Amino acid sequence: MTAQRTDTIRWVGDLDGRCRLVEQTLLPGEFKEIDCETQEDMWDAIKRLAVRGAPAIGVAAAFGTVLGVRNSGATDAAGFLDDLKATTEYLASSRPTAVNLFWGLDRMTRVARAAGDVPVAQLKERLLQESKTIWEEDRDICRRLGKHGAALLGEGENALTHCNAGGLATADYGTALAVFFAAHEQGKQFAVFADETRPLNQGSRLTAWELQNAGIPVTLICDNMAGQVMKEGRIQKVFVGADRIAANGDAANKIGTYSVSVLAKHHGVPFYVVAPTSTFDMATPDGAGIPIEQRDPEEIRRGYSGGLNAPADVDVYNPAFDVTPHEHIAGIVTEFGVIERPDTERVREHFRRHGLLADE
Amino acid sequence: MTAQRTDTIRWVGDLDGRCRLVEQTLLPGEFKEIDCETQEDMWDAIKRLAVRGAPAIGVAAAFGTVLGVRNSGATDAAGFLDDLKATTEYLASSRPTAVNLFWGLDRMTRVARAAGDVPVAQLKERLLQESKTIWEEDRDICRRLGKHGAALLGEGENALTHCNAGGLATADYGTALAVFFAAHEQGKQFAVFADETRPLNQGSRLTAWELQNAGIPVTLICDNMAGQVMKEGRIQKVFVGADRIAANGDAANKIGTYSVSVLAKHHGVPFYVVAPTSTFDMATPDGAGIPIEQRDPEEIRRGYSGGLNAPADVDVYNPAFDVTPHEHIAGIVTEFGVIERPDTERVREHFRRHGLLADE
Repeated sequence: MTAQRTDTIRWVGDLDGRCRLVEQTLLPGEFKEIDCETQEDMWDAIKRLAVRGAPAIGVAAAFGTVLGVRNSGATDAAGFLDDLKATTEYLASSRPTAVNLFWGLDRMTRVARAAGDVPVAQLKERLLQESKTIWEEDRDICRRLGKHGAALLGEGENALTHCNAGGLATADYGTALAVFFAAHEQGKQFAVFADETRPLNQGSRLTAWELQNAGIPVTLICDNMAGQVMKEGRIQKVFVGADRIAANGDAANKIGTYSVSVLAKHHGVPFYVVAPTSTFDMATPDGAGIPIEQRDPEEIRRGYSGGLNAPADVDVYNPAFDVTPHEHIAGIVTEFGVIERPDTERVREHFRRHGLLADE
Repeated sequence: MTAQRTDTIRWVGDLDGRCRLVEQTLLPGEFKEIDCETQEDMWDAIKRLAVRGAPAIGVAAAFGTVLGVRNSGATDAAGFLDDLKATTEYLASSRPTAVNLFWGLDRMTRVARAAGDVPVAQLKERLLQESKTIWEEDRDICRRLGKHGAALLGEGENALTHCNAGGLATADYGTALAVFFAAHEQGKQFAVFADETRPLNQGSRLTAWELQNAGIPVTLICDNMAGQVMKEGRIQKVFVGADRIAANGDAANKIGTYSVSVLAKHHGVPFYVVAPTSTFDMATPDGAGIPIEQRDPEEIRRGYSGGLNAPADVDVYNPAFDVTPHEHIAGIVTEFGVIERPDTERVREHFRRHGLLADE
């Protein structure tokens, strides 16, 4: 995002303001921002993937909540909480599998409840303030992920990434791509190979665009070329994001990540997952418990933009995610540092050390 | 091709005739045949992948040679051989990795030389006859490949294939897909997962179409999903074709085949290459000696049909093929049977037993 230096998502103005976000479905052909002024605008933006990426969806949920309740006619806190509930339930229906969506909505609800019996105007301001805090926290976490990850990327190395865990997936700087942005700011020389990431081409459309804009050397490949570039000795590290990480370190991410992890293991290339601790689902012991969303067959029958590439009625299997077993992961980079060779004990120890196991 | 029952490539008429072939770039949206009347027509058809697949390219090379020399103005055999050399060198430049191209051109040259000092008109007829013999032999070989390969596919198993080594890749019935056509004719129950095979989508456009037409259950996946379906235990065998096989069994095939071989090895899934002995390049000791064609970056920046999916000027790496090391191959199915766990000695023994090492 360096060239544009535009935020993926942000709040403009005060309580009467609006949420401005990059219309990602048009990238890289057209760079356009849209304003969401109602909860319906935000629901639609999330549904259409105009805003996408786990952390950014959490922020969008928070801003969307403000849009939904700022005109509430409730005259007391109880009435306001009813309106808030209607708004969060509505927004939750936009992408029912996105964990960060619920995380953002829950956090807004908790804040409103905790405020107690205060005037409605004050509750509205409190929620706007919380949404901005979530946004700022996400930016801070991105920077910290970048710093810890960049230390793993050696001078002159090439890295491979899959899908888009970049600035466009967060409020600022990305997760996996934060590693590259941070290393680039440090003046490190390196290059990135980006998998195009079928069927929705987040790699070719978004990752390639972001890295190119930042002046980072990037080479686009088809997903089936990752093995070949590793075999040629051209990849020294893999960095990917995650959508959900089980307690043992098994990491769900965009479909194809698992294949990359097998290829990396075969070629002795260290494979890193970069994700904030909010991505961990400590209640799920391992990856077998992570549900895999199945998506529309038409995504595969067609190219991302354009026509039919297959028989119109051919059977399709279209899982949106897969799970990389923790045995394939050299380290998980969080905002607190790196969990090396993650397993249940090491993940737990990382959480304990950073005060994230408050219930113990 | 069952539904259409049209030859992928054939000669129509006598020496003044033409080579008619299926315009594969339009499939599956449109079924159309084109006529090649000059060597330039054929060069273009091979280059554009209107005709593609190793065996079909061998046949196209033979027919293309006829098109190139049939109007030769040479008055004696020596002059004709000069014209023939110009034609074969020209056609050889269309696709440098395709060993069947060279095989077809060499065979035509040998036949012309062996004919001795006969009238030019007779040489032209002799070459047309040879090209038709090559075409007929290819059809016979497809059937034999299918028979030997089908014995490897168990009742109720699922197989994965990559790219298109089907009827559209040969004069008749395919190489890897011949296995499925033969098994289907035998009444065996099985299902096929087909990789879409970016960037040119031979899997989604051609393999899915051919299998569907033949009434064989086929499920289309993106290339990056192969690891996931193997992990789910849904693949029992892999069958792929080959564009060139070195003397030790290292097999060059469509880009992505190598990745599939690594995934198959990781999951304990037997990986078979199905290819006629004409695909072997016994003068090349191993895969390191096989040149890899690099193709147009635009193929990756765009979907197969339709618009730009990436920044218009993004760097691209677009190898058309990769090489699967013989250690990853459970067997190579040829028209004579199966070379199990191929290596230099076993390949050589197979060739010796079937009288293909005439120089010894």
